[in-house]
Order: sequence, then structure tokens, then C-alpha cells
Amino acid sequence: MEPVNLDAMLARFAEHWAPKKIAQINDYDVPIVKLQGEFTWHTHADTDEFFLVLDGQLTIQMRDRDVVLRPRELFVVPRGVEHCPRADAETALLLLEPGTVINTGDAGGELTAEVEELA
Amino acid sequence: MEPVNLDAMLARFAEHWAPKKIAQINDYDVPIVKLQGEFTWHTHADTDEFFLVLDGQLTIQMRDRDVVLRPRELFVVPRGVEHCPRADAETALLLLEPGTVINTGDAGGELTAEVEELA
Repeated sequence: MEPVNLDAMLARFAEHWAPKKIAQINDYDVPIVKLQGEFTWHTHADTDEFFLVLDGQLTIQMRDRDVVLRPRELFVVPRGVEHCPRADAETALLLLEPGTVINTGDAGGELTAEVEELA
Repeated sequence: MEPVNLDAMLARFAEHWAPKKIAQINDYDVPIVKLQGEFTWHTHADTDEFFLVLDGQLTIQMRDRDVVLRPRELFVVPRGVEHCPRADAETALLLLEPGTVINTGDAGGELTAEVEELA
């Protein structure tokens, strides 16, 4: 593989809630994603979920509290914990997840997106 | 867990080549590390190795080429590829690796360090 520049990769797409895979470590994917607005409440029963904010501000709503993340801040939602990401302004994240993860977890619906590979 | 601020975590230690675990996703660790100078040539036979530069500049020397990474740039060294990280000035990285990885891979030696957990 070649070195990956996050800003160059972020410049290659505009759509929200559509993760783009930029690297792979063993059987884990590293996607980046842009988002704005509110996602859907969902749970991943089988995996923790890692969020690192690159730009903007992310609120991870959980049933018992919210977590707010700014650039260079990260959080791991433990498996089984229902959550709903929200970003009032456009926000960019780096994620880390097993290659088999569905973005909407158990919730499904129209926000469900395949992770597209940015070649 | 609580949100993790990378700059707050980086401020908590000064030593080089001593990875500090700041998060865990399933059986993968997320360490940060500071480095300056040259590491040791080594290979991880069983795992890819992920490097994201937070500050500074990292050169990943491989036998057939070097890769130079600046902040917001990342690279994955494939399993089995011999490599030797080098940083002329102090550099900070975020890593991602199976919780079982030894930093010096097959090489061992005095640079071998346990990943300490930053609570």
C-alpha cells in the first residue's frame, strides 16, 4: 500500500454517513466518514466501536449520558451499548472496526451503507 | 470508559519508544508512542502494523523503500515485511495492533517494551 493522507482522502467524497475504507489491519477495517445531523439509535452486539474525531464535533448519545468529542479526541462504545451519533456541523471521523460490521448494527434501515473502498 | 484526549495523554509521559495503551477495541489495543532517533529492524510475522502520525515526521524504512509520514498521514506495514521506524525530531504516533504484539517483533533486544496502560 501507499501512505494515506487523511485530508486528501476526505477531499475525495462529500456524502454523509457513508464510510470509506482507507486501510486494513489484519481483519479490521479503517474507514473514514463524514456526517452531519443525527444517525439512528443502534447497537452492535458483537463488537466495540472506535471513534476518533478528525474535524468538527461529535456527540455520541447513549441512553444514560452523552459524550462530546472534538478533534484529537476518541471514544470506544462498548459492544451492546445502544448509541446514536450526532453532529450539528459537518464532522469527519476515523473509525476502526472488524471488516464485517454493519454501520447501523441491529437497527437496519435506509442509513445502512456498505463500506466503500477508496482505492 | 471516558473520552480520550490525545494531547492530554501525550502530555502524561516523555519517554521514547515506550507505547502507552489508551483504548481497546475488542482484542486490539490502541497505543500512543513518542519516538526520536532510530528503532531496530524487525518483522511481525503474524500481524500487520498500523501507524498514524499525530505530531512530527516518521520515516518507515523498509528493505526496498522508505515511506515518510507527516501528521494526519498513516501507513500499514504488512505482516512479514521487515521495517525500521526513524524520526529525526520527536514524533508522536497512534498505533493499532492485536493486544499480543511485541514492539520489536522478532528482533527482541533492549528496546522491547511492555505496553503500559494509561489509566
